[in-house]
Amino acid sequence: MNVRPEIQAMAGYVPGEQPRPGEAIKLNTNENPYPASDKVFEAIRAACETGLSRYPNALGEPFREAAAEVYGVERDMVLCGNGSDDILTILTRTFVGSGELLRLPRPSYILYKSLAEIQGARSEEVRFDGHWQLPPKFAQPKEGLKLAFLPNPNSPSGTVIPKRTILELAEQLPCPLVVDEAYADFAEFDCVDLVAKCEKIIVTRTLSKAYSLAGLRFGYLFAQPHLIEQMVKVKDSYNCDALSIAGATAAILDREWRRDNRRKLIATRTRLIDGMRNLGFCVPDSQANFTWNVHPTIPHKPVYEYLKRYGYLVRYMDYAECGDGLRISVGTDEQIDICLKLVNEAIR
Amino acid sequence: MNVRPEIQAMAGYVPGEQPRPGEAIKLNTNENPYPASDKVFEAIRAACETGLSRYPNALGEPFREAAAEVYGVERDMVLCGNGSDDILTILTRTFVGSGELLRLPRPSYILYKSLAEIQGARSEEVRFDGHWQLPPKFAQPKEGLKLAFLPNPNSPSGTVIPKRTILELAEQLPCPLVVDEAYADFAEFDCVDLVAKCEKIIVTRTLSKAYSLAGLRFGYLFAQPHLIEQMVKVKDSYNCDALSIAGATAAILDREWRRDNRRKLIATRTRLIDGMRNLGFCVPDSQANFTWNVHPTIPHKPVYEYLKRYGYLVRYMDYAECGDGLRISVGTDEQIDICLKLVNEAIR
Repeated sequence: MNVRPEIQAMAGYVPGEQPRPGEAIKLNTNENPYPASDKVFEAIRAACETGLSRYPNALGEPFREAAAEVYGVERDMVLCGNGSDDILTILTRTFVGSGELLRLPRPSYILYKSLAEIQGARSEEVRFDGHWQLPPKFAQPKEGLKLAFLPNPNSPSGTVIPKRTILELAEQLPCPLVVDEAYADFAEFDCVDLVAKCEKIIVTRTLSKAYSLAGLRFGYLFAQPHLIEQMVKVKDSYNCDALSIAGATAAILDREWRRDNRRKLIATRTRLIDGMRNLGFCVPDSQANFTWNVHPTIPHKPVYEYLKRYGYLVRYMDYAECGDGLRISVGTDEQIDICLKLVNEAIR
Repeated sequence: MNVRPEIQAMAGYVPGEQPRPGEAIKLNTNENPYPASDKVFEAIRAACETGLSRYPNALGEPFREAAAEVYGVERDMVLCGNGSDDILTILTRTFVGSGELLRLPRPSYILYKSLAEIQGARSEEVRFDGHWQLPPKFAQPKEGLKLAFLPNPNSPSGTVIPKRTILELAEQLPCPLVVDEAYADFAEFDCVDLVAKCEKIIVTRTLSKAYSLAGLRFGYLFAQPHLIEQMVKVKDSYNCDALSIAGATAAILDREWRRDNRRKLIATRTRLIDGMRNLGFCVPDSQANFTWNVHPTIPHKPVYEYLKRYGYLVRYMDYAECGDGLRISVGTDEQIDICLKLVNEAIR
């Protein structure tokens, strides 16, 4: 019944498995193993007291103000979204028309391709080299090219492109470069300060990973104000609800919680990387809250299946000509120790 | 910087004024004057206890199950959204491609036109007749016509198209007919049962009006399962957050709260209609939680401005060749009495 042919032809993006709570240890979707800051829940309870009968603030102003303070930018450089998926959707719809071109690295976040498909646009994947860096082709102008996505740190690799290179890529590209910093809270640097310097650089963020708030759906981006103005026309008028605005604002202002959580996860990440390398896996240095694990000889899928049988979900990913591997989210120390033990059993 | 020309050319949808809480009596955006059911807040608090670190259920299954029970439909006929704006966006993106055509009545909800613009599509408005009914033209096939929106009850009029006529319109149309039932909770009938009978009928709902949950952002739709399957590919993977799923599920299951709230608002609506008619306004019989008020001789804008000066916000709407008027949301009895007093002063 009249469904657009582009949509009918799509397979649709398939997110990682989400078992019922308590049914499995989830090391498959890069969620944070620790509960969010108490201040988040306090803020949500306070927002409940005010009631929910009125429409929320259309631009999420309390959050914009907090983000401006935390990152030292102007408030009108911040746009709030219903998860960073909403932010990526808004970007695609603002910049990429039907039949136009969107560029992304391969392997990276598969959703970018789905966003192009929904938009009736084309997408072009540029392969990372063996060191997870990008060839010059990624920055080359091309007919119809309207937007480039670059996750940094990247998934599934956890690796980063240096900041200097990102600025160079943006300067060469004929279109905006979206630096998807979903995992930048776990990295050694971020690109937020490049946004004011280069109008082509747009930085996106999420509270799902570093703030333990995947269930709240809150993402945001930094861009120059004249671009935000255009994106506001594209977003749903009230895309963030009153509870998520309150919770997200409290989260981003609790810098102590973020620092402690980050420190714990980075320590466990080292434990995970060392452990997997000791088991013979090739693991690139990760700056995210997960690692990418490729064994030179042992097939990966049976390892994934063995772990699943014992209630440990990791992500098996197969990128065809780029090869397959296991992406393992950083859990608690205890979870990672058991995971390593299970991997050891699986490969013996 | 590369923003799509369609977006640059847009004025953007402008929602009704949202003053800070306590700054004005809001009778301008059809919010509910009473607080939501206590059960909603209990459910949100309980969801907070579980934490927010995990992704929410991607399809909002607890809500789908509740809606299926309440409305006597199958669960796979329900799709959840981040407010009914998200639902209307998903519908437009599923059915209307770039350059294609979307039909809507005039005057009705201005957002439909914005949705077509964002999609790079065309829109065609068909005028209501003097009795707020639609001419046969609304159902006529036309090159590129892919979707028709029909708010029922309509805004700003509060009037309805009979159910029989809706089925006839759908049968004649070459595309799906979206019956936007944002206000149907206040009406004498709804079209939910038509969905199973006619695959072209899709019914959308919101919790913003009849459940006092505009701040929570939760909407949903009923459609045949094979259409829902396609729409799932278009929506953001996790478009509803864990708190809104919990709150919305509790809301829809509290049928007693809904019945009491509905009864109160319908009684106050009668008071508002009678009062405005006594002041000389033409007010069509409303089946929504607002009324449309047109005075045959007195200009409307000064009345709106007078009320605003006294802290009462109503909606002044000007539809060019269709004329202007005041849309007044049904508040509490006390608010409506003061509003009527102010209107009386303004027109003297």
